[in-house]
Amino acid sequence: MNEYILTLSCPDKVGIVAAVSAFLSTHDCNILDSAQYGDSESNLFFMRVHFRAVRSASDEDTVRMNFAEIAARFRMRWGLTPADKKIRMIIMVSRFGHCLNDLLYRYSTGTLQATIAGIVSNHEDFRAHAEWHRIPFHYLPVTPDNKAQQENALLAILTREQAELIVLARYMQILSKDLCAALAGRCINIHHSFLPSFKGAQPYHQAHARGVKLIGATAHYVTPNLDEGPIIEQGVERVDHAHTPEELAAVGRDVENLVLARAVRYHIERRVLINGNKTVVLR
Amino acid sequence: MNEYILTLSCPDKVGIVAAVSAFLSTHDCNILDSAQYGDSESNLFFMRVHFRAVRSASDEDTVRMNFAEIAARFRMRWGLTPADKKIRMIIMVSRFGHCLNDLLYRYSTGTLQATIAGIVSNHEDFRAHAEWHRIPFHYLPVTPDNKAQQENALLAILTREQAELIVLARYMQILSKDLCAALAGRCINIHHSFLPSFKGAQPYHQAHARGVKLIGATAHYVTPNLDEGPIIEQGVERVDHAHTPEELAAVGRDVENLVLARAVRYHIERRVLINGNKTVVLR
Amino acid sequence: MNEYILTLSCPDKVGIVAAVSAFLSTHDCNILDSAQYGDSESNLFFMRVHFRAVRSASDEDTVRMNFAEIAARFRMRWGLTPADKKIRMIIMVSRFGHCLNDLLYRYSTGTLQATIAGIVSNHEDFRAHAEWHRIPFHYLPVTPDNKAQQENALLAILTREQAELIVLARYMQILSKDLCAALAGRCINIHHSFLPSFKGAQPYHQAHARGVKLIGATAHYVTPNLDEGPIIEQGVERVDHAHTPEELAAVGRDVENLVLARAVRYHIERRVLINGNKTVVLR
Amino acid sequence: MNEYILTLSCPDKVGIVAAVSAFLSTHDCNILDSAQYGDSESNLFFMRVHFRAVRSASDEDTVRMNFAEIAARFRMRWGLTPADKKIRMIIMVSRFGHCLNDLLYRYSTGTLQATIAGIVSNHEDFRAHAEWHRIPFHYLPVTPDNKAQQENALLAILTREQAELIVLARYMQILSKDLCAALAGRCINIHHSFLPSFKGAQPYHQAHARGVKLIGATAHYVTPNLDEGPIIEQGVERVDHAHTPEELAAVGRDVENLVLARAVRYHIERRVLINGNKTVVLR
Repeated sequence: MNEYILTLSCPDKVGIVAAVSAFLSTHDCNILDSAQYGDSESNLFFMRVHFRAVRSASDEDTVRMNFAEIAARFRMRWGLTPADKKIRMIIMVSRFGHCLNDLLYRYSTGTLQATIAGIVSNHEDFRAHAEWHRIPFHYLPVTPDNKAQQENALLAILTREQAELIVLARYMQILSKDLCAALAGRCINIHHSFLPSFKGAQPYHQAHARGVKLIGATAHYVTPNLDEGPIIEQGVERVDHAHTPEELAAVGRDVENLVLARAVRYHIERRVLINGNKTVVLR
Repeated sequence: MNEYILTLSCPDKVGIVAAVSAFLSTHDCNILDSAQYGDSESNLFFMRVHFRAVRSASDEDTVRMNFAEIAARFRMRWGLTPADKKIRMIIMVSRFGHCLNDLLYRYSTGTLQATIAGIVSNHEDFRAHAEWHRIPFHYLPVTPDNKAQQENALLAILTREQAELIVLARYMQILSKDLCAALAGRCINIHHSFLPSFKGAQPYHQAHARGVKLIGATAHYVTPNLDEGPIIEQGVERVDHAHTPEELAAVGRDVENLVLARAVRYHIERRVLINGNKTVVLR
Repeated sequence: MNEYILTLSCPDKVGIVAAVSAFLSTHDCNILDSAQYGDSESNLFFMRVHFRAVRSASDEDTVRMNFAEIAARFRMRWGLTPADKKIRMIIMVSRFGHCLNDLLYRYSTGTLQATIAGIVSNHEDFRAHAEWHRIPFHYLPVTPDNKAQQENALLAILTREQAELIVLARYMQILSKDLCAALAGRCINIHHSFLPSFKGAQPYHQAHARGVKLIGATAHYVTPNLDEGPIIEQGVERVDHAHTPEELAAVGRDVENLVLARAVRYHIERRVLINGNKTVVLR
Repeated sequence: MNEYILTLSCPDKVGIVAAVSAFLSTHDCNILDSAQYGDSESNLFFMRVHFRAVRSASDEDTVRMNFAEIAARFRMRWGLTPADKKIRMIIMVSRFGHCLNDLLYRYSTGTLQATIAGIVSNHEDFRAHAEWHRIPFHYLPVTPDNKAQQENALLAILTREQAELIVLARYMQILSKDLCAALAGRCINIHHSFLPSFKGAQPYHQAHARGVKLIGATAHYVTPNLDEGPIIEQGVERVDHAHTPEELAAVGRDVENLVLARAVRYHIERRVLINGNKTVVLR
């Protein structure tokens, strides 16, 4: 397969699509799928193109080198990736394993186009589960005293494993602001409420106390501001007065699974571009 | 038709259902539909029974008088209403008429079991629409100076029209705390966001700024705390990065229509019981 | 405003997007929004571009004339329309008026970018409603004997009014195969079931008999095969065992409103391209 | 815990609820949750009561023996079960393991109130997965020649394991009419379409060919008529023209998981009563 994903964002102006598509046409690259968005507020333009290089000469290096000229002309932030490349991913989890189980099942059946390079947890609960899937398990228990030290250990793992994506699959420790900044744009968290409602701890208890008729989940990029990062995907499910906080949580787990799985897939497929504190999801 | 709706709430204890159903059985009343809920937090029990009196002697007055003994024994708050009774309802609206139009259409086709006794607005926009439906239109423009005076005028209308339900169908003036208290449990507002997110003004602009992937609407009883009253019904619709605030509002209008119409129907059908700052909706 | 919508479909091959975007760039046209789809089954390519002509010289005639060369080269079926053009539309209805009322409300508030050139019905029920909106009302009662004659009368109205879109908003007469063929691709029907379930008459009764847990509605282009035309949009709502057929119909009406309104909007905005017996909806 | 679930259905008449609730009150049983439904078509009445026996004398046998008189009087089909009883369940699966994985995860975290007594498959694929959960795995490969024999082997397993519920979690062999009859009311299948659309084989390919805009899944009791049994639960998800049949299947798997898990939970909690070829789901 000789297919690539090109993503880019740049200041909006006439001729971007023309330049990109002419470039691809000149290099005998056939556009399979293309999506774009111009944000009139930020005056930024976002584009994702999935194309096939039909000429053997159009290898990745040639395309990359030649495209750099266009990118410079339009002041693009851009990326070019083989479409079948498997992103290297680390999953972090605490004691609720439903999102981990869901991602691992998708992984084991080949529907998650990624390599799970490790599972990191502050508890031992899922060591056996990780080993069953032959994925390295890293136990990094966190206390107020060793937090900085364990974050260094985590960073060492991420570096050694060349992790491009970190998924917080119900990891219940708050990352330090420095670590959040270091992982900007490549660390996805699942928050178990429909943000911005019910930020912080125990969102299902908050939802129960408020008497809402729908509960939700939100997948977002982690930023130094807790639960305030760019939202990638959200989902909801109907509940009623008879649901206890525990039953809300049970309903919510299914929503969390779906919302996180979609957000991870969008990220892996290079569909998510960051636009300030928001996302553009090009489908 | 000799059908009635009985609603009640009281401290939970053994024997409530037995007492109510034995009473109905003794009076030759056939239960058509019954729903109940015991809240283990507040230790309150809620019940709604739709029944048919098959003996002519079981008229409303007899049933009411005899049931009062049971009600006293269990310290019930209760109500008994003929099932075909049309509730008297006033709609209040400002300049967005979609909810008004939706309710009027349901009304005109007989699917809203109510008598719309009047439409009150701080603008003249919908006078012709009201007159087309032969519904009295009351123009009560509000300024900072005349607010108290106009609320008195409103109360006079509600009293004269014997209004049992007041529906704020995108009425954009904030009611005074006294008026909210006076209308407790019988004034439904539609808020154009998924509460508790985006309270207050311009929720669609807030939603746009936050970059949410679903927008919603919330129907709730009005209380002196703005947008904090008991939630009756909520709904959401999917949106994406490309929606402007105006497009979010357009999507949202359809959600508002449905959510408000459902909340009004639940209220009219005596399905909504108040449980502190929450609702029990017995379907 | 100097904005246009270009839609096209043609056999898929390398260079279509490049040719179109180079053309627009050359004519100083700025792409505001663009979407495309290549169907690997039919090997057809579909595209919709919303652009702004920033040079005064790029008027509609110039663009149209010059683009014809590209269109011929790629054997395109294509259309170019000013973005603010109001499509001329005829609504047909029988005795259920909810979709009509919904469309008229959107029309009256300017959210439906169309001119409703007339309302045609085989009943008199909605004459007053039409006149209130100052829309010509045509009463064409249909009997087995006069069906062909009334279809001729209908065609005369459509021709005289230059109707580009015909919306069957719960019009309960079956159009003849000849008329369906004559209106191919510009006649939208709302069917009150989730097609292909429950084709034909009384779908809510069919749904009740089958005991489904969700009911739906389907907007599709009319073809000579009843309820078999290309689907534009569908929606569903949850129901349960307690719903009578009449209550299913009441729930369904809200779904019908939303589904038809979306399909009509997609059509008006030139987002719907026909791909054999399916649609491509470019959003 | 001294809690029970009582379910019953019988011809509808005055006094059923009164008799049941008086019985419970007399036995010092406190109703925790109760739901009922009278079907005016079949003239059958359905009821489910969750109650707590507060007197030690009200043990299961006493309640059962005494209730039998009421049951006889009203000609009830009824059942009484300790609320914490774990139903014995067999899962059958072929080569798609998503529903199996989903059910096993719920099982492993204690949220499925059942004992999975075995996994039966016509393939070996999930033997290791079963063993990891310490659940007996039975390999029963099916050919045209051995089908009757393997169904006997299956029946022997079901008998030996005292299976009360059989879940076909994407088991792709069609059961014989005799076996379906033998398992009436206790065998749940997940069909990967929104029935009655797309019965039979390859529903996602059928959905793709028809160009539907939503796909669904249906959990139903198995009957001798393929895909025609009483529907317990359904769900849908939005798709569009760009989804290949394989992508429809991927979206559909998530719907199948949720729909089957809900149906199984409703059954386990004794919420599903059969009403001819339909279900009453009392929540």
